[in-house]
Amino acid sequence: MTAVEITFVEGGALTSVPGFQATGVACGLKKDGALDLALVYSAHPCAGAALFTTNAFKAAPVLYDQRVVRANPAGLRAVVINSGCANACTGEQGMRDAEATAAIAAELLGIGRDDVLVMSTGVIGQLLPMSKIKSGLFAAAQALDSTLEGGHRAARAIMTTDTRPKEVAVRVRVGGSEYTIAGMAKGAGMIHPHMATMLSLIVTDAPITAPLAQKALAEATEVSFNMITVDGDMSTNDTVALLANGQADMPPIVQEGSPAYQNFCQALTQVATFLAQGLVRDGEGATRFVEITVGGARSRAEAKQVAMSVATSLLVKTAIYGQDANWGRIVCAVGYSGVEIVPNKVRVWLGDLELVRNGGPYQVDEARASAILAQTDIPIRIDLGLGAEEATVWTSDLSHAYVDINAHYRT
Amino acid sequence: MTAVEITFVEGGALTSVPGFQATGVACGLKKDGALDLALVYSAHPCAGAALFTTNAFKAAPVLYDQRVVRANPAGLRAVVINSGCANACTGEQGMRDAEATAAIAAELLGIGRDDVLVMSTGVIGQLLPMSKIKSGLFAAAQALDSTLEGGHRAARAIMTTDTRPKEVAVRVRVGGSEYTIAGMAKGAGMIHPHMATMLSLIVTDAPITAPLAQKALAEATEVSFNMITVDGDMSTNDTVALLANGQADMPPIVQEGSPAYQNFCQALTQVATFLAQGLVRDGEGATRFVEITVGGARSRAEAKQVAMSVATSLLVKTAIYGQDANWGRIVCAVGYSGVEIVPNKVRVWLGDLELVRNGGPYQVDEARASAILAQTDIPIRIDLGLGAEEATVWTSDLSHAYVDINAHYRT
Repeated sequence: MTAVEITFVEGGALTSVPGFQATGVACGLKKDGALDLALVYSAHPCAGAALFTTNAFKAAPVLYDQRVVRANPAGLRAVVINSGCANACTGEQGMRDAEATAAIAAELLGIGRDDVLVMSTGVIGQLLPMSKIKSGLFAAAQALDSTLEGGHRAARAIMTTDTRPKEVAVRVRVGGSEYTIAGMAKGAGMIHPHMATMLSLIVTDAPITAPLAQKALAEATEVSFNMITVDGDMSTNDTVALLANGQADMPPIVQEGSPAYQNFCQALTQVATFLAQGLVRDGEGATRFVEITVGGARSRAEAKQVAMSVATSLLVKTAIYGQDANWGRIVCAVGYSGVEIVPNKVRVWLGDLELVRNGGPYQVDEARASAILAQTDIPIRIDLGLGAEEATVWTSDLSHAYVDINAHYRT
Repeated sequence: MTAVEITFVEGGALTSVPGFQATGVACGLKKDGALDLALVYSAHPCAGAALFTTNAFKAAPVLYDQRVVRANPAGLRAVVINSGCANACTGEQGMRDAEATAAIAAELLGIGRDDVLVMSTGVIGQLLPMSKIKSGLFAAAQALDSTLEGGHRAARAIMTTDTRPKEVAVRVRVGGSEYTIAGMAKGAGMIHPHMATMLSLIVTDAPITAPLAQKALAEATEVSFNMITVDGDMSTNDTVALLANGQADMPPIVQEGSPAYQNFCQALTQVATFLAQGLVRDGEGATRFVEITVGGARSRAEAKQVAMSVATSLLVKTAIYGQDANWGRIVCAVGYSGVEIVPNKVRVWLGDLELVRNGGPYQVDEARASAILAQTDIPIRIDLGLGAEEATVWTSDLSHAYVDINAHYRT
């Protein structure tokens, strides 16, 4: 098998991928005049793939995009993303507004309506102010930019309570050919699989069929976006989409299981994981990035269930915020996870410190624990002692700032 | 059917029930010198019933009591409850300490070891300081008191982060006979069914068999303690126990479905509900008491699942703390509850204000909503429009004070 080389592109953005243009404009959806409308455009038709929230209340743009991806999986050309208004729980008018957004963009760009995806994020239950969207799209279509700055502006325009943009690009070199995968994403609350409250758009110039793109996106998402939680709330708008314009000079990726497909999956997973971890690091009020790995499980599903139980425990999250090595709360959350465990087989590590062995306290060195908890990144490892499967999830701590942000989100 | 009259006893305590003595002493488990050891004693053998946490990590006193209730369901005489140390995740030494606690109490009281239940609440993973327990029990056995003050002291001694004791007594009059049911409970974090992090002891002089007492306790708990959530964390120590000394002058309750049994269940449910609601009202950092009723469900189980999804949503809880009528977060939590719903049939009321109809905004009167959210008690009603079943759960808001309390619990 040919060696594959995957390298991060410094300062990468969506526009690191040849053939993509992007921009972000301010159209008045955000009160503070910040960028709030992103437009991404591909000069060539793209194979498209997308995954959506499993929330029963799906926002209008989610329902709309599901239809478009089904109808036109190989001809996508543009994505419109607005922040400040989720266009969720907005009924038939909301659906008409999503359709109109796509139609306006299509007309401005001279492409078909079914070539355009739309995404929205922000407050639930308010109608999109369509005149603002319309003038914003007009400005954005003029401002489309193939330089890095265009991508950076798009990444900033999709932010809500995010404090910084999340974007990344990787270059893949394998057997003389080269392609790029780049992505952007936004959090930062209502983050819980499947999916997190998040929007993410990933683009590539790799030539790949739509069905394989969908499969690769599902694989990558399962170990990245679906393994993060900030607050356990799953939103109405979560969307991750992948557009592949096929412009890289290489044989197309057409077969699942082929080395080319595996390389693509690996690189795509790196991009998705980088973005997913970025969402957690910038989670609402987050002061810590917590990596929870559960091993020794009978199955990956059980490992994930236990890890998520710990990751969503308010008591674990507040203890980490308080830099308190309260391992009792960790084993407690393991105990109520719903997975059948054997208490006295459970081991828990905080960093290199084995806090719990045989279900009871072991190396409870408070000084060392405090030093570990003073780090920005907190690794927690749990071994169930029941099997060989494992899973890793990422979460943030629960701070005063989370309460600040969410007590007065709409005001 | 004879009319039953159930009245609250003003200032009631466990010792409102004839035949029960109680007290609380300070034996040094709490750093601030507050009461931390409760002893409850019955002059007569009691039929006993108990329900325990379903957490896989069961604390030593839970495992111990499960054995005692099985071995001696009709002869219980005393309950020892300590706060400050949960005796959980303490291995074999923890079990020996639970046994020793019961043995010391039995010797001091001149009863059998198997006549004594023990309960613990506090920090997980620390061994019981047995010399303190021993001297505390010695003092408590001397101080047993059949006046109200004895019951009040016991209720204060079981508190951890509770800000006030939770106790209640009701008198039941039916067909010329009269009996009393009284209970106490403690919260105030790690509150989530089944059970909440809670200890509760209920006593009565009603004559009832142990199997019927168990059945009645399960029925009452299902609509009271199992319907509350503060933070979604289920503890290792949750226990609710019922002791019935049979001293009331009335025919014994021996048949399920009999009017006497139904009256008993009704009164017991009142006691349990009062205590459960008291736990939520005094939940860690709580500034609001939120009653969430989900109706129009296909089954009670689905109604409860939806109500719990809303009740545990951090975004709903922080919005209520911030007095923000963010109904979008409510429908979002309905949407990810896992229950199959039809979005456009969903209606949501905040008090008398119908915020959501047909899955979208309806009477969104922000001024009226703000007035309702300024109340201490916040009623939320959700109608799924799918059936005739309903369920009610109680929760608190999520405040800065919750984070304060839990970031530094052990220090």
